[in-house]
Amino acid sequence: MPDKPKDLMNYEGLAQEALRGVVRAALKKAAAPKGLPGEHHFYISFRTDHKGVSVPADLLAKYPEEMTIVLRQSYRDLAPGETYFTVTLEFGGQPKSLSIPYASITRFYDPSVQFLLQFEAVEMPADAPAATPLSAAKPLAAKPAAADKAKPAAP
Amino acid sequence: MPDKPKDLMNYEGLAQEALRGVVRAALKKAAAPKGLPGEHHFYISFRTDHKGVSVPADLLAKYPEEMTIVLRQSYRDLAPGETYFTVTLEFGGQPKSLSIPYASITRFYDPSVQFLLQFEAVEMPADAPAATPLSAAKPLAAKPAAADKAKPAAP
Repeated sequence: MPDKPKDLMNYEGLAQEALRGVVRAALKKAAAPKGLPGEHHFYISFRTDHKGVSVPADLLAKYPEEMTIVLRQSYRDLAPGETYFTVTLEFGGQPKSLSIPYASITRFYDPSVQFLLQFEAVEMPADAPAATPLSAAKPLAAKPAAADKAKPAAP
Repeated sequence: MPDKPKDLMNYEGLAQEALRGVVRAALKKAAAPKGLPGEHHFYISFRTDHKGVSVPADLLAKYPEEMTIVLRQSYRDLAPGETYFTVTLEFGGQPKSLSIPYASITRFYDPSVQFLLQFEAVEMPADAPAATPLSAAKPLAAKPAAADKAKPAAP
């Protein structure tokens, strides 16, 4: 038996859910007419096998589990909704539309100010029930990281 | 001039605002008919001089800047709203009602699982305008702390 008392409040899940709202808020700023201010840009990693993710078949074949996108200057049609966002990005010169639920995001990183959020990967393949809960037993993974701890996202 | 680029996204403010939602969610669980599960209980510190805080005059005289309340078994009439919560607690055997905006909270701690959230004190005395922004230049203060970093709240 573990010594640590069980977290019956599910603080980890509450904090992760709350901090996914930061990603949504950041995307809303990016979607505003003026776009991203200053040098701000985003690296966003997400599970391509997560329920609700929609990416073209060739990208899914290349990244069957996880992929990272960069939102800098060349994004368009960015539309952040309540539970997912859509965006069009160029891959090899071809524009492709992606639809990404916030719950599929594993990492959000803005290198300009080294702001990093990491999320527990929610194990939820597309054919699994949507109600799979976040594990409450693992150490807290969603946290704003100090600048000196932030590492560049894998491109 | 500082070397660090200015955070034009106000990530600190976004994260703080998001994590105050964790306090609200925790209080909503505490307000449910079954009350707090297991050994969970809360130490909540807040600025008594914050706009919207309502505490009896004798408590305000004793704690003109900040006070910490404990929600364990003896709270009642706990009502968490969207922007503030109200609760009745006993002080020296006398029941007293408090009304506490989430924005006034500086610290939330659950000793049972050593879950700690700390918030930048929003410098907002009761007679100041409500629009005082959070400073974006200071290091991120709202963070779920690892268990080994958590310290017991001052009673």
